[in-house]
Amino acid sequence: MVEESDDINVGLLGLGVVGGGVATALLEQSDDISRKVGRRVKLKKILVRDAAKPRDPGIAASLITTNPEEILADPGIHILAEVIGGTDPATRFLKDALAAGKHVVTANKEVLAKSGPELMSLAKQNGVSLLFEASVGGGIPIVGCLMNQLLANDIQSVHGIINGTTNYILTRMAQAHTSFTQALQEAQELGYAEADPTNDIEGIDAGYKLAILASLAFHRRVNPEDIFLQGISSLEAKDFQYAQELGYAIKPLAIASMSNGAVQARVHPALIPLGHMLAKVDGVYNAVEVTGSLCGNVLFHGMGAGREPTTSAVLGDLIEAGRRLVSHPNGSSPPMSWPPENGSSEETIGVSSIDGLQSKYYLRLNVSDQPGVLAQIAKILGDGNISIASVIQKDADPDNQSAELVIITHPALEASVQESLRKVVELNVVKEVNNLLRIEE
Amino acid sequence: MVEESDDINVGLLGLGVVGGGVATALLEQSDDISRKVGRRVKLKKILVRDAAKPRDPGIAASLITTNPEEILADPGIHILAEVIGGTDPATRFLKDALAAGKHVVTANKEVLAKSGPELMSLAKQNGVSLLFEASVGGGIPIVGCLMNQLLANDIQSVHGIINGTTNYILTRMAQAHTSFTQALQEAQELGYAEADPTNDIEGIDAGYKLAILASLAFHRRVNPEDIFLQGISSLEAKDFQYAQELGYAIKPLAIASMSNGAVQARVHPALIPLGHMLAKVDGVYNAVEVTGSLCGNVLFHGMGAGREPTTSAVLGDLIEAGRRLVSHPNGSSPPMSWPPENGSSEETIGVSSIDGLQSKYYLRLNVSDQPGVLAQIAKILGDGNISIASVIQKDADPDNQSAELVIITHPALEASVQESLRKVVELNVVKEVNNLLRIEE
Repeated sequence: MVEESDDINVGLLGLGVVGGGVATALLEQSDDISRKVGRRVKLKKILVRDAAKPRDPGIAASLITTNPEEILADPGIHILAEVIGGTDPATRFLKDALAAGKHVVTANKEVLAKSGPELMSLAKQNGVSLLFEASVGGGIPIVGCLMNQLLANDIQSVHGIINGTTNYILTRMAQAHTSFTQALQEAQELGYAEADPTNDIEGIDAGYKLAILASLAFHRRVNPEDIFLQGISSLEAKDFQYAQELGYAIKPLAIASMSNGAVQARVHPALIPLGHMLAKVDGVYNAVEVTGSLCGNVLFHGMGAGREPTTSAVLGDLIEAGRRLVSHPNGSSPPMSWPPENGSSEETIGVSSIDGLQSKYYLRLNVSDQPGVLAQIAKILGDGNISIASVIQKDADPDNQSAELVIITHPALEASVQESLRKVVELNVVKEVNNLLRIEE
Repeated sequence: MVEESDDINVGLLGLGVVGGGVATALLEQSDDISRKVGRRVKLKKILVRDAAKPRDPGIAASLITTNPEEILADPGIHILAEVIGGTDPATRFLKDALAAGKHVVTANKEVLAKSGPELMSLAKQNGVSLLFEASVGGGIPIVGCLMNQLLANDIQSVHGIINGTTNYILTRMAQAHTSFTQALQEAQELGYAEADPTNDIEGIDAGYKLAILASLAFHRRVNPEDIFLQGISSLEAKDFQYAQELGYAIKPLAIASMSNGAVQARVHPALIPLGHMLAKVDGVYNAVEVTGSLCGNVLFHGMGAGREPTTSAVLGDLIEAGRRLVSHPNGSSPPMSWPPENGSSEETIGVSSIDGLQSKYYLRLNVSDQPGVLAQIAKILGDGNISIASVIQKDADPDNQSAELVIITHPALEASVQESLRKVVELNVVKEVNNLLRIEE
């Protein structure tokens, strides 16, 4: 509870890249932020792991602590901003803060994806806000727009490029024809990919973000472990070249869609028509396209990560939390749209199996360069009710008597495609199935 | 004031295209909207001009009135939604509603551009909200994002394609090589342009919208009459062809920028590099790119007009107003970012004259096809400190002994360019200056 005359005090958990940006902004733009909130906003304490580490000289030593209780147990701290990442101890810190009646702002996608509904329940019980714009899309205000401005819509789908690391890698493979390994190394050298890139390249990071977006879009809990994930490491530079010839870009997509009460949610590289706006999202940029019953397609494009864009999102939420404190000094936050509006926040909507997906496919096969090969493959696909839209033969290799076939299908059932491919790969004339990619029109 | 047990009642002014969408949604999706608000929301009365006009059978005759006082003077109506457009009587209706303590949602760009700050003061005095997401960009949530999610940023510029009519016309001229007149006629036949298209093609509509965006971005009042407007009717199909050859698209831009405390605000067709996202915004689509100190470039793209997208924005604001009623039954709305946060809402920031603009220019001239012409033109431009980046000679016409010159300049001062062109046009060898367009990099 804040008295009319009190300052609004912020406790910050974490002083890494984003934490440094938030701390600097709170210290250097304090007047501006306070004016926007309508009350003096002060950074009171910052939790760090290592107090001895050298810091920006603008950050006074008296602000630093290694004891989380100095923030969590301080009733004079009204808003907690968490940018430490990971589930432990972050989840516990957030729960303690909400239970203590603090408004919480977090950038933590993993905690939100896994424990968002519980945290939101706790926030409601305690009459405080849980705000997490920074958890998806960096400086792109997609979270708030789904929770507020676009709320009148029945959301039909969300298509996003929400992992900058993989988008950078695929962009380099497409534009500079580098291999996946080279592009990943470049991304690591530039600081766009971590030393262990698994979370990004296997789609785990995008899966957390998609779980959050899908939950907001469909007003039900969508569990991240239910989301289909396919990484990008099987892609080769020539896939981009063939896709381009066929009129497509290959992008790392995260897709959630709702039809007839069933949710599809999947993260995988996909072919997108070159004319589509998402095909033009390059490098570390992110974009999210929302399709709603009234708004139609609305696309958001911007920097999905990094110190400044993420700071923009965290500070936007801090200002929002500050305004709520000013206008509701006794709590009782406005209703939030976190799933569901009615009933238990534990109410989960299952994600349909990828087996039931209807999609067009791009298929690249290494085959013997001899007559009749295509007939054998086409027979199997036809038996599986998969009709071929086009076939291109590529890269005949006379030394190995092999050739490369690129097949584009008409819409077909994922389960049939997978089943048919298992048969295709057993053909003597088929050396390898190099890639199977979905096409989003 | 709403009692805990009361319904939230909405009065709607206008039952045209958008009004019909709003009414239908309030009637047909009442349960959904009420759940999102947290209280029953009801459409209580609709003001129309002609009660005898046939209506959608879903709209009961008892809802219709031709007497504005049945809405404005009814204390049982808590939220007013205005979609009649124009300044009179809309401005008066909005003032009366705010003064009577009603929350107001409006799609009226002209009223907001001309009287926004006064209306906002009135809203604050009466502890109610004035929400106007639908006034700019249809289904694109740009207004709310500038007022909320992006609020931590110092906004450096806003670049928008915020008039769908002109974007449709220019897109047709670029893609189908039609003349301006033909493209306008097409737009009229499709209902994208009005019978009198002046407001759109002369940039007046975009000027109102830009005044709103600039006021939100820079936290000062920006008067629409201070904004430089240049229409699109001087463009010819060949300008698009030449621009394309030079690597540019021509788009109807609205630009507001702030540097060193000075605001530039202008609406005109401009050349944009083909690789830029705004160059890819085609047809009736709108887009707005915001450049902020923290978020970097964030682009919003979507349907900028039409029944459903505008209804999405109006309903989003209605839900927001409803939630504020639920959480603040006694008024005292949260602070708003409408200019300025402190001081008088009349505080205006002047717009710098277009004369002071530094820009690259595209110049198309009809000249005599004889030696030495370029030398004479280049001399005048050079004397005006305008340096030429490239020249292409086009469309020599032997019958008239004339040729067309397309000149691209390096950055130069607008006043010098205008002054030099007045001299160029006096040269005997120059028949006509066909077009002068600014280039946005």
